[in-house]
Amino acid sequence: MNRSQNSRRSFLRNSLFAAGAASVATLQTSPSQVMAQSSEGTPVLAPPMTSEPINIGSNTLSEGPLKAAVEAAARQLPLSGSYGGVAASSFKPTLARQLGVPEDYLYISPGSGPALGWAVQSFVSPTASLVSADLSYEAGWRAALKKGAEVIKVPQNSDWSHDVRGMCAADPKAGVLYICNPNNPTGGITSRADLEYALANKPEGAVLLVDEAYIHFSDNAVSAVDLTMKGDVIVLRTFSKLYGMAGLRLGYAVARPELLEKIKLLAIDDVSSTTYAAGLASITDENLVPQRRAYYGKVRRDTVAWLEAQGYECSVSESNCFIVNVNEDGREFKRKLATYGINIGRTWVGYENWPRLTVGTEAEMAKFREAFTAVMAGKLGPLPMPEPRVAMLDGRFEDAIGAEHGLYELGSRIC
Amino acid sequence: MNRSQNSRRSFLRNSLFAAGAASVATLQTSPSQVMAQSSEGTPVLAPPMTSEPINIGSNTLSEGPLKAAVEAAARQLPLSGSYGGVAASSFKPTLARQLGVPEDYLYISPGSGPALGWAVQSFVSPTASLVSADLSYEAGWRAALKKGAEVIKVPQNSDWSHDVRGMCAADPKAGVLYICNPNNPTGGITSRADLEYALANKPEGAVLLVDEAYIHFSDNAVSAVDLTMKGDVIVLRTFSKLYGMAGLRLGYAVARPELLEKIKLLAIDDVSSTTYAAGLASITDENLVPQRRAYYGKVRRDTVAWLEAQGYECSVSESNCFIVNVNEDGREFKRKLATYGINIGRTWVGYENWPRLTVGTEAEMAKFREAFTAVMAGKLGPLPMPEPRVAMLDGRFEDAIGAEHGLYELGSRIC
Repeated sequence: MNRSQNSRRSFLRNSLFAAGAASVATLQTSPSQVMAQSSEGTPVLAPPMTSEPINIGSNTLSEGPLKAAVEAAARQLPLSGSYGGVAASSFKPTLARQLGVPEDYLYISPGSGPALGWAVQSFVSPTASLVSADLSYEAGWRAALKKGAEVIKVPQNSDWSHDVRGMCAADPKAGVLYICNPNNPTGGITSRADLEYALANKPEGAVLLVDEAYIHFSDNAVSAVDLTMKGDVIVLRTFSKLYGMAGLRLGYAVARPELLEKIKLLAIDDVSSTTYAAGLASITDENLVPQRRAYYGKVRRDTVAWLEAQGYECSVSESNCFIVNVNEDGREFKRKLATYGINIGRTWVGYENWPRLTVGTEAEMAKFREAFTAVMAGKLGPLPMPEPRVAMLDGRFEDAIGAEHGLYELGSRIC
Repeated sequence: MNRSQNSRRSFLRNSLFAAGAASVATLQTSPSQVMAQSSEGTPVLAPPMTSEPINIGSNTLSEGPLKAAVEAAARQLPLSGSYGGVAASSFKPTLARQLGVPEDYLYISPGSGPALGWAVQSFVSPTASLVSADLSYEAGWRAALKKGAEVIKVPQNSDWSHDVRGMCAADPKAGVLYICNPNNPTGGITSRADLEYALANKPEGAVLLVDEAYIHFSDNAVSAVDLTMKGDVIVLRTFSKLYGMAGLRLGYAVARPELLEKIKLLAIDDVSSTTYAAGLASITDENLVPQRRAYYGKVRRDTVAWLEAQGYECSVSESNCFIVNVNEDGREFKRKLATYGINIGRTWVGYENWPRLTVGTEAEMAKFREAFTAVMAGKLGPLPMPEPRVAMLDGRFEDAIGAEHGLYELGSRIC
């Protein structure tokens, strides 16, 4: 089966990024065998496992796109000698109808990362700051810093929502107020009332940028899409998360045409026609969002309940990710879990003991729980412990363990 | 067969771009039947043709990607829940090895359009012009104008090569010298000696930007890739032309890392993992380039010989396109050919009688010759004559006939 071959191939002991890297870890015994061996004192040199490596570090879905989306994309492939095509032409009008906005309110981009970057860079400047929650997704921070803008971080509320009052008051000269709803990495949601407060009370001239990359996973978060018709609001969405299309690069921004025009001056729309085909098939399937929302919601609740029952505090999440307090340095804990072939997310400044977990399938989370239990009991898995490669980035520390195991998160592509 | 269904569906009498457009032209008789009927005086209302519409207006290949590329991309599709993947990681090192440049000399972009835009915008300014041949591909002109830079056009030589001496002397403060080799739309090539002259004699501080979108079709054009290691040279390539991957969005820039860094400050790399898979399969097939080069070279020579035998002057081309003097307004001629379901390219300022032709398959060019003969004899085909929709763009006139027939050329995506 191609999928498992590929996953295994990607799980190199050596970095995938080195040209010609070719040594593949052959994994032959089960995690439970490995743990038994670990307890006998040979944790690092134990025979490798049969199980696939598991990536619960990038907030992506291992199950990939909807089957109909894969099929639609496959049918488009032989036609890709030409620019565009039927799906490329139909995607935007179909999406506009579903969202209830005019077509010229949409800018389609290869993932929401470019749209986020250009949106921030269009409205911040050395005299117009970016105001963000702390902690939150930092891609916008990087885009702002590139433009010489200040990044102002307002601590979140104790219920993991954004402190929109604090954000509105943070800087009268703000260019952008960034609200990630549900928030990455916590999964905390910001209420509709708070979004409306932010729109009514944001500084004169500031744009409200609402990142809804994870909103499809939430039962209670209310979209700000309709607010784009009422004021200076830009909403971002992606197909990289619930839609399982991270590798295909599709996302969009919703905003009044006058706001989009500024973004488009910077951006170039270059989405593959194959990706458009997959996107069109995905948005025209009525069951995809509710089914995946229900499934990953249940797995999240089960996983959080299991962790909390053992005394590990978790953020209150309505997303496919949350952070958990492992009571030790999260980067070190991540390295230990990686010896079981399980890649979890990184940590955030101020939350160094709280790595981010992505909610995978039930089977993936069962393996996570097994490895988590073993690591907490002081036992390591059969794979080498990754080096603690730490890089300074925008004043924050990030590590690259996932990259070493071919299970990585690309800085510019996280959404 | 999906391909023909799709092509036919895209050939709407109404614009594809209108949401909900659904009336499909049912084409039932052959072009020769149509022409017979046309000669009997019912050119516009004649029964429609069975033949597929033919797009020889965008310099793309209707046969699409290599079969192995389609298969590799299809295998990647179910894995696209994750970012990146094996092909995404292998593509750049493999390409670097083939080109004989270090890996950090490559910037991979979704088509060469973004790389071209960012490259121009990185090195022009209101005080640093873009120097181009006239006529040539204008996407770089637009990028320069966006930055407030002057665009200086140096007439080409009578053998359809660039006047590199004139270009080097055109502006001592030039930021970019743009050489398209082979040139779009003429197919004219610029010699290696002239490229080396340009590198040695370009204004201090100017970057030599060599667009090799069409070089795979040429028997005699010599790449400037190795010159990137000797000076301020940026080479652009695309998979949209000979590789038949226009819809998949893949291209790249080759340059010293110091030059690429400037481009990367603007650019976001967002190529689909599916596209990477198709690209990797394409560059690792040794036969693809020589086979398609030979095939389309022969069709080009045959088509040009046929046109010249009837007295229609053509540019001297080593590409899959050329311009032909039809001795009347080229936009009007394009509208007439469109009544036969054949979309040819547009015209250029100063060459209003010389529309651009793309070299298609032998079968496509046979149909072109049939329709060309009929139009030259004053006969129109069964399809409605498109409205002469003319738009002013950067001081040039462009029409949108292709768009009306679903056979369009996207401004920002032509490479």
